[in-house]
Amino acid sequence: MTVTADLAISLDGYIAGTDVTIDNPGGHGAEPLFEWIHNLTSWRERQGMTGGEENRDSQLMREWFDATGAVVMGRMMYDTGEEFWGDNPPFRTPVFVLTHRPRPTLVKEGGTTFSFVTDGIHSALDRATAVAGDRNVDIAGGASTLRQYLAEGLIDELQLHVVPALLGAGLRLFDGPGRHPRRVEPLRVEETPLATHLKYRFVK
Amino acid sequence: MTVTADLAISLDGYIAGTDVTIDNPGGHGAEPLFEWIHNLTSWRERQGMTGGEENRDSQLMREWFDATGAVVMGRMMYDTGEEFWGDNPPFRTPVFVLTHRPRPTLVKEGGTTFSFVTDGIHSALDRATAVAGDRNVDIAGGASTLRQYLAEGLIDELQLHVVPALLGAGLRLFDGPGRHPRRVEPLRVEETPLATHLKYRFVK
Repeated sequence: MTVTADLAISLDGYIAGTDVTIDNPGGHGAEPLFEWIHNLTSWRERQGMTGGEENRDSQLMREWFDATGAVVMGRMMYDTGEEFWGDNPPFRTPVFVLTHRPRPTLVKEGGTTFSFVTDGIHSALDRATAVAGDRNVDIAGGASTLRQYLAEGLIDELQLHVVPALLGAGLRLFDGPGRHPRRVEPLRVEETPLATHLKYRFVK
Repeated sequence: MTVTADLAISLDGYIAGTDVTIDNPGGHGAEPLFEWIHNLTSWRERQGMTGGEENRDSQLMREWFDATGAVVMGRMMYDTGEEFWGDNPPFRTPVFVLTHRPRPTLVKEGGTTFSFVTDGIHSALDRATAVAGDRNVDIAGGASTLRQYLAEGLIDELQLHVVPALLGAGLRLFDGPGRHPRRVEPLRVEETPLATHLKYRFVK
């Protein structure tokens, strides 16, 4: 079983803008991170929309969707996404939400369930692993959750979609303590007109 | 005339380690940033050494050396490099050193001169441009100098040699204020066993 993280990141290392709130989950100034995604056929399909462009970026996103058997996310990401995702969220797998407040599991349409995990990141990963089958567990975000899994050395593969922009401020993926230095091994490098897609495996 | 910057950078955005001093200019923990360079034929030639490997990385470094007609660097980089570079420094072009203390120009062997500029980064760039001819002006470092030129929007092309490692701490290339957000345009993406080479042009 492989634990993945798959993120859009600016050339200067930001995965969200400034002033992230429930009403503005990407943060201020984050448009370059996400605007390239909205017209990809594979992304639109997952949001229940038709159309878009079936380009290489769309294929890479579909590959990631299809390879994912369970998802872990932080409470902030859940809270900011809940309304937008609606009754048929794009995950279509079990999702484990890190929180301090117990809640019953929510069963949505299309295969998505939201289970609320109160006993930490290792427990959430264990529970996700137990249901992911042959597929990957993806650590979806946000920045704080990703940093915790990175710091514990729990992520196996990291795909960064480097968008051609500098934000200058926001939330960094790589920040704070962790096991360092760490070696990674490049698995794939692909350039498209929209982003440079870098896929790495962490060396154990 | 094109103003370039060409740097090894870790996947987590560091261009030097921690505790940079005269005796340890790369800083603590920075080995992954620089170890891939030492066996490149083109780098060794510039240091007056024979041997090494003439691989794609060596070609990319030679391309950058050959394209550079003048160099700008900070005082810290000059002070840390002075002894190592010796009587025949690797630049083989005029070098303009940003400093607060006037000094006479030093003429070295092989075409390298060191001129000391006391009236700021624009003046240093102007003087470098005046002598670079058809070739580029390269902003060589260190981190503080690079950030100042980036913040003023004075760099045209940025080549990042992303080494497959996370340092976890050190000096970041992208830090502090500047004109943001900024768009960049990918010029070239190449993967080698040693690094992922990303070349961007800043969009004006």
